[in-house]
Amino acid sequence: MPGKGLLERLDSGVVIGDGGFVFALEKRGYVKAGPWTPEACVEHPEAVRQLHREFLRAGADVMQAFTFYASDDKLINRGNEAGRSFSGAEINDAACKLAREVALEQDALVAGGISQTPSYLSGCTKEEIQAEFKKQIDVFVANKMDFLICEYFEHVEEMEMAIEVCKKTGLPTVASLCIGPEGDMHGVSAGQCAIRMVKAGAQVVGINCHFDPFVVLETVKLMIDAVKEAGLKAHFIAQPLAYHTPDAGKQGFIDLPEFPFALEPRVCSRWDIQRYAREAYEMGVRYIGGCCGLEPYHVRAMAEELSPERGGALPKGSEKHDLWGEGLRMHTKPWVRARAYRNYWENLKPSTGRPFSSSFSQPDNWGVTAGANELKQQAEATTKEEISKLKEFKKE
Amino acid sequence: MPGKGLLERLDSGVVIGDGGFVFALEKRGYVKAGPWTPEACVEHPEAVRQLHREFLRAGADVMQAFTFYASDDKLINRGNEAGRSFSGAEINDAACKLAREVALEQDALVAGGISQTPSYLSGCTKEEIQAEFKKQIDVFVANKMDFLICEYFEHVEEMEMAIEVCKKTGLPTVASLCIGPEGDMHGVSAGQCAIRMVKAGAQVVGINCHFDPFVVLETVKLMIDAVKEAGLKAHFIAQPLAYHTPDAGKQGFIDLPEFPFALEPRVCSRWDIQRYAREAYEMGVRYIGGCCGLEPYHVRAMAEELSPERGGALPKGSEKHDLWGEGLRMHTKPWVRARAYRNYWENLKPSTGRPFSSSFSQPDNWGVTAGANELKQQAEATTKEEISKLKEFKKE
Amino acid sequence: MPGKGLLERLDSGVVIGDGGFVFALEKRGYVKAGPWTPEACVEHPEAVRQLHREFLRAGADVMQAFTFYASDDKLINRGNEAGRSFSGAEINDAACKLAREVALEQDALVAGGISQTPSYLSGCTKEEIQAEFKKQIDVFVANKMDFLICEYFEHVEEMEMAIEVCKKTGLPTVASLCIGPEGDMHGVSAGQCAIRMVKAGAQVVGINCHFDPFVVLETVKLMIDAVKEAGLKAHFIAQPLAYHTPDAGKQGFIDLPEFPFALEPRVCSRWDIQRYAREAYEMGVRYIGGCCGLEPYHVRAMAEELSPERGGALPKGSEKHDLWGEGLRMHTKPWVRARAYRNYWENLKPSTGRPFSSSFSQPDNWGVTAGANELKQQAEATTKEEISKLKEFKKE
Amino acid sequence: MPGKGLLERLDSGVVIGDGGFVFALEKRGYVKAGPWTPEACVEHPEAVRQLHREFLRAGADVMQAFTFYASDDKLINRGNEAGRSFSGAEINDAACKLAREVALEQDALVAGGISQTPSYLSGCTKEEIQAEFKKQIDVFVANKMDFLICEYFEHVEEMEMAIEVCKKTGLPTVASLCIGPEGDMHGVSAGQCAIRMVKAGAQVVGINCHFDPFVVLETVKLMIDAVKEAGLKAHFIAQPLAYHTPDAGKQGFIDLPEFPFALEPRVCSRWDIQRYAREAYEMGVRYIGGCCGLEPYHVRAMAEELSPERGGALPKGSEKHDLWGEGLRMHTKPWVRARAYRNYWENLKPSTGRPFSSSFSQPDNWGVTAGANELKQQAEATTKEEISKLKEFKKE
Repeated sequence: MPGKGLLERLDSGVVIGDGGFVFALEKRGYVKAGPWTPEACVEHPEAVRQLHREFLRAGADVMQAFTFYASDDKLINRGNEAGRSFSGAEINDAACKLAREVALEQDALVAGGISQTPSYLSGCTKEEIQAEFKKQIDVFVANKMDFLICEYFEHVEEMEMAIEVCKKTGLPTVASLCIGPEGDMHGVSAGQCAIRMVKAGAQVVGINCHFDPFVVLETVKLMIDAVKEAGLKAHFIAQPLAYHTPDAGKQGFIDLPEFPFALEPRVCSRWDIQRYAREAYEMGVRYIGGCCGLEPYHVRAMAEELSPERGGALPKGSEKHDLWGEGLRMHTKPWVRARAYRNYWENLKPSTGRPFSSSFSQPDNWGVTAGANELKQQAEATTKEEISKLKEFKKE
Repeated sequence: MPGKGLLERLDSGVVIGDGGFVFALEKRGYVKAGPWTPEACVEHPEAVRQLHREFLRAGADVMQAFTFYASDDKLINRGNEAGRSFSGAEINDAACKLAREVALEQDALVAGGISQTPSYLSGCTKEEIQAEFKKQIDVFVANKMDFLICEYFEHVEEMEMAIEVCKKTGLPTVASLCIGPEGDMHGVSAGQCAIRMVKAGAQVVGINCHFDPFVVLETVKLMIDAVKEAGLKAHFIAQPLAYHTPDAGKQGFIDLPEFPFALEPRVCSRWDIQRYAREAYEMGVRYIGGCCGLEPYHVRAMAEELSPERGGALPKGSEKHDLWGEGLRMHTKPWVRARAYRNYWENLKPSTGRPFSSSFSQPDNWGVTAGANELKQQAEATTKEEISKLKEFKKE
Repeated sequence: MPGKGLLERLDSGVVIGDGGFVFALEKRGYVKAGPWTPEACVEHPEAVRQLHREFLRAGADVMQAFTFYASDDKLINRGNEAGRSFSGAEINDAACKLAREVALEQDALVAGGISQTPSYLSGCTKEEIQAEFKKQIDVFVANKMDFLICEYFEHVEEMEMAIEVCKKTGLPTVASLCIGPEGDMHGVSAGQCAIRMVKAGAQVVGINCHFDPFVVLETVKLMIDAVKEAGLKAHFIAQPLAYHTPDAGKQGFIDLPEFPFALEPRVCSRWDIQRYAREAYEMGVRYIGGCCGLEPYHVRAMAEELSPERGGALPKGSEKHDLWGEGLRMHTKPWVRARAYRNYWENLKPSTGRPFSSSFSQPDNWGVTAGANELKQQAEATTKEEISKLKEFKKE
Repeated sequence: MPGKGLLERLDSGVVIGDGGFVFALEKRGYVKAGPWTPEACVEHPEAVRQLHREFLRAGADVMQAFTFYASDDKLINRGNEAGRSFSGAEINDAACKLAREVALEQDALVAGGISQTPSYLSGCTKEEIQAEFKKQIDVFVANKMDFLICEYFEHVEEMEMAIEVCKKTGLPTVASLCIGPEGDMHGVSAGQCAIRMVKAGAQVVGINCHFDPFVVLETVKLMIDAVKEAGLKAHFIAQPLAYHTPDAGKQGFIDLPEFPFALEPRVCSRWDIQRYAREAYEMGVRYIGGCCGLEPYHVRAMAEELSPERGGALPKGSEKHDLWGEGLRMHTKPWVRARAYRNYWENLKPSTGRPFSSSFSQPDNWGVTAGANELKQQAEATTKEEISKLKEFKKE
């Protein structure tokens, strides 16, 4: 759909999003788990560019600039030193340019994103919080981003503040919370959250991160139903994790004991993601992408699954991937060639090779961030003593 | 150890290898599962270069040129069309140059590799087989590779032919089979295989691919003991999968039903790989690397674990990774900060989030490639009819 | 509480039920899986008597006569021949006398029970259905049973017919459905079912069979809340399976692929049952027992857990069981002695020893018995042809 | 085979043993876990009689008197008080009479058994140890037992002493160790153990307890091969656990964290046992029975599986059990009727319903009983302090 904007594309078809940057680049060596900030845009642009390109080749219609958590109040938070070398504006500017550079190779859209802030969680005023947002959005506008994404918000109240800032730019605005079917961290139901985001002016609403594709769709379904019932209109977005999280509690995968360094056994296969893309489409979701853990081959799986809906087009990455494992017909071993068909992969329940691992974990359940002092954001680094105290607290 | 060659480095310390290219680049969209050939070196050098650089940053001392399966008889095999666009020599030449380019950034060694051939499995003569090897090695010599690796051989007989060709170059020669504790596909024991490889002239012998780190170490242990008992001397190499395969049969992970498109739940965590690096070192292995599934963050885990043995040096990638999860002290959620210590990650048995998956699969057990016609290599593509026949065969 | 009736006991304390007869006696060789009828009362009274005695020793306050499915229309159903040798009245009479004989050893109560009928499922009239109930209840009255139990009903409509018949006797009446949180097979909610049973005259209402202890409690909770909200009063009963069934659908464990001959890995431990007894008590349930799979040692676990609530009394069976594994202090191996304490057993997640088994199954989901012809009761035996047709049906 | 003795029966066919008494009667409330002694023979003969009868009905050809651990030095060991009320001779005498009484109902054989003694483990002299054995065997001879079983020995040295005592009676002698493929607790290989038992005079040798059916068969296979290779002749016995123990170490299931109160998820299904019976028979084992966890329905499964080898005879218990689940053809639900065939049950991998449980445990590995003081038998009860010490020891 060359030359078309986000909303036109959504009106007439399906838009495939990209996957997650922070987890992919953490594994590649460019992002630090803990602070999760995107200084790699300045430090190692070649790595960010390469990941953009892989998502593009895999079929993504959107290059989302790698601006996650690049607010100034986050870049110097809790011992993270990134903010001492670069301002948020420098990082965001570099991110926008990288996204655009790659997008031009295939007529993709580019988007700038903002996320929840330490300022909100520390009890700052609306003005202070919106000032953080505006600093980021100014860079997106200066770089002529095609649209804006407010994503990874746990509180719809802060999301409304973010949408308000975005709307002033006149750009299309996407709003996605990182909540599950139980609603936001202040107890607002998922359906009510959707209504509030639409009323605040977001044209596309939905969910990203924190939960697996099927839990995310369950939540988006609640949103679709509520928006419809309220007599409102919107497009819907789903950008889930590529980790299975049936056992996660209200705050999603960060509550799971495996987060963030032992999530491997939870990674979705390409077949899981193909099923997700189909179910999302059938549910009426038209912006279908992914978040943490979702890698280029997962994006390709979405593009392959939705190829009929996109006029039969396949992404460039499918030059190296035949549908449903048919490439295995070239394998040297006959019994591997015997796996070259759809039913085989669709029905396989993959074994784990982990005889000491169980299916479910018991998530930490530290309640929601309605104001407990322990849950407030702090600027200072964690001390050894605090770690000890936290460990003891966990045992109780 | 600037300026030192492989054998000097092994004599005085530990050499960290890189990870696997074909699986990583398959996920990134540049390699096709089935043929698994490395035409990406010519088609998309930026992708190969980036992966090299990630392994380098993670601490790899060797840039292994991406030459896997780039023999002419493989590039046009079974419906693979790669060989129609590029000769093996072109691909290998590009691969060598990419490896060298990145290696120069950090004084890493470069190596060229050869692997088992369709020619051997189709019953060609020793001369024909060695001619295939020589075509590849000529390119490595022309590009002044630091050493040669014969890897991914299932039959020690073919390996001996490969070593013989390598030895003529005068370059240090590494020889690693892809076998398990049961021995090679003709029934030669692992210990006997090691002795034959040392006698054929390999200075470094061991195992790569096909099995998980701990099964590989079990096999290497058999080799170490046999070489010692035979009064011979050698260095040892281990380059395992980063997939857990306790249930794999004689032919390793290709026999598992999950191969190659649903191996996700088997991926090793960084902590698994750290344990592997420690055990390998203590067993006497000095060339410690990885193969399929082993990604940059796994290499970094090896480098971090063996940092004390390397004078305390840490890889560049550790700028974005504190040891044993300590970076989590910067996390916003207190219960995640409470995971910022070694015992937590060392003892965690990660849950899978997959309630329908079991720990073990039953591997296909099609016997060994001692000559059954079905197991012979063919040049022709697989027909639909053959797939049907194979599926029926599996049911019997 | 010698000399007291059921309602007095429930008013002032907790009544411990017994466990399941059909599954226990199937394993002992006296009951046939499929028809599940209790002709053992006549054929092998010593086996029935012994199981009663074991439950009594374990702490059961009620000897429930083994009358399950002993309606005449069931005893000659679907190829079962039991009804050709004995009438329902003969079996029920023998059952009552066995229960009373053992109950006298320890002042336990005796109860006669009726369950859902083929007559209802085949569309007979209310008069015909109630006639089946009355034939059974006449025997219970003649044998001076202390109270009546209507249990294992899937439709509250049939349950109401059963309660109506029971009420005419003047005996206390317990009513327990075998439904889950989704409600009865006609779609009546669990809460509404409870209200209807109370209004029909049952003094004790709740759930038995079909689901595991924790799912059963979830359903009973819905009942407690609904009854309270409706301004009604009742006692509550829970008699769950001793099989873990988190994955069962609307019709419970019979839908699970393991039913009935491979349920072993799902059997609850004594510690699971101790936790259940505690949670049931805290929820307000006062008649706490079990159903299929719940064996004498499980009943003992309930009696031990609720010993403080029963004035410190322990059952006779506890002569051979110290609380929380303390008997292991007499074990010969020191590391087994180290398991002789509460926290050990309470926190253990027992491994399965089954590397090829998963946690969850996918239940058959054949919908509810609202009248599909296939789901109607038939008197005729199943033919080989029907089995073949059913197998094919399952594949679709 | 009416009127025939054990050896004649073994010469011409297969002998089906019974299952385990201590675990079954622990669950029924008559045996205490920890000491595991058989005073129930005197205290509750009806319970012991009933279990004998169930095994008989299930097809057992042998009623093994419930004499396990009834040596005087065991009955007052470690805080067990049983020996204060009854002498070993009294218990053994009652046990013999119960076994004979039931055996007469179906021409079964009766056997008396002896097991390893605290005396041996405490370093008593051979004379002292054999005196313990003789006291028991005198009772068996007085009661005209058909043969003797020395079972549950961990050291072949003590076993030889036991066989020597038995041989003096002139009765056929069966000798079964409770060891795994790694050999006895002093490091004697399984094959060598078998040879020594045969040379000591046992006519039937093999394995009972401690490991699952398939590990036991693996060990018996080592024995069969060794005996054959040594040019000796013997019959072979297997009486395994009915618990899956692929993860158990050298000392078997007592090392598993689930022992003895959370073994439920490991219980073998009837189909597992049917497979075991077939494999045992094909391996040449002719005395096929079971031990702890093996219940009457498991014995019936063996008898049904080996029915063709026994002239088509089925046990009485099969009146209530059709082969391979065919009784389900009488089930009321059509989808359960669809399970009434062999392939269904043979191929089912039963799910556990336990999302928090893993397949494997890590066994305690406290080494073997070659004399460490901690592993010596003591007569005194365990103190609270010792438990604390042991718990700490486990953590190290």
